[in-house]
Amino acid sequence: MDRLRKHLEEIIELTDTEYERIKSFFTLRRVKKNQYLLQEGDHAKYEFLVLSGIFRMFFLNEEGKEYIIQFAGPNWWMTDYQAYFNQKNTTLHILCMADAEVLCTTLEGRETLSAELHKMEHFFRVKLTNGYVAQQRRIISLLSGTPQQRYEEFGQLYPHLMQKIPKKYIAEYLGVSRETLSRLYSG
Amino acid sequence: MDRLRKHLEEIIELTDTEYERIKSFFTLRRVKKNQYLLQEGDHAKYEFLVLSGIFRMFFLNEEGKEYIIQFAGPNWWMTDYQAYFNQKNTTLHILCMADAEVLCTTLEGRETLSAELHKMEHFFRVKLTNGYVAQQRRIISLLSGTPQQRYEEFGQLYPHLMQKIPKKYIAEYLGVSRETLSRLYSG
Repeated sequence: MDRLRKHLEEIIELTDTEYERIKSFFTLRRVKKNQYLLQEGDHAKYEFLVLSGIFRMFFLNEEGKEYIIQFAGPNWWMTDYQAYFNQKNTTLHILCMADAEVLCTTLEGRETLSAELHKMEHFFRVKLTNGYVAQQRRIISLLSGTPQQRYEEFGQLYPHLMQKIPKKYIAEYLGVSRETLSRLYSG
Repeated sequence: MDRLRKHLEEIIELTDTEYERIKSFFTLRRVKKNQYLLQEGDHAKYEFLVLSGIFRMFFLNEEGKEYIIQFAGPNWWMTDYQAYFNQKNTTLHILCMADAEVLCTTLEGRETLSAELHKMEHFFRVKLTNGYVAQQRRIISLLSGTPQQRYEEFGQLYPHLMQKIPKKYIAEYLGVSRETLSRLYSG
């Protein structure tokens, strides 16, 4: 569990007592490649902090076409937030792309921790801030970027994911056809 | 300034002393229709809370084509967050579409208030949560929605904006051509 402490202490400092309390709100789960962490219709009970492995979260339309909303690697937080914050069933899927370990926390746990410890409220605010900025940037890229600009921006932002994720899925995430991506980067 | 208190107290309860302290970090600004609140190259010094009026925030590409990132009406918080949180110059524009009043706060003010008052940290976390959820939903809509789905979702989410904003700009926001929107809703 010390990976959680290390992750939290990138932003806040904790006493041993505080950390013991925080830790009690998280449970560890192991997921194998190609297993689902969340499927459409599931109750969005948990938010996940990825410790290891890679996931992709996507929406399936009525024809079964997949639209990737985000990838998540180590130290990323992820869930269907609309469903989680409203305690509804999810309309999304989260699939494991490489054997993984995640920490799970409920909305009740998250809110209790935030109310008890100003530090944790701060931690979650900082994480949300970073996530909000990344999403604002992604919206700009989806609206206005050329395929080449989108691909290069992705490589700059996420060099680690770029190496580990098949191009097919990166193309899907960028909203660019596989053929366009191959034509640009056949070298 | 009581509009600020009312807005904050939708989420947190404040004593008079706390409110006086909070208020000291905000300054009022009036903006006329067609004035810019922020232009590309400006230092992103402020975050804005809209009290009245309507704005649109957009990106201009090299050919001068406009891509709308968001609209903002009363009680919305808005700025180029990537630039604001990193205290850089903005790459975006915020234009007033109807005479407006906004409250401005600096990043330093925001962070000071959050550190001093757990309540304010909570307030900002809740606002970011709502913004994050709205953006995640917008990404799904941009990736997978048909023009008709996007338009109807916009109408459900923002009935107030739907009435006040010319269709031309709604089409732009949705990433749909004006002609497509007119064909769908000529009735």
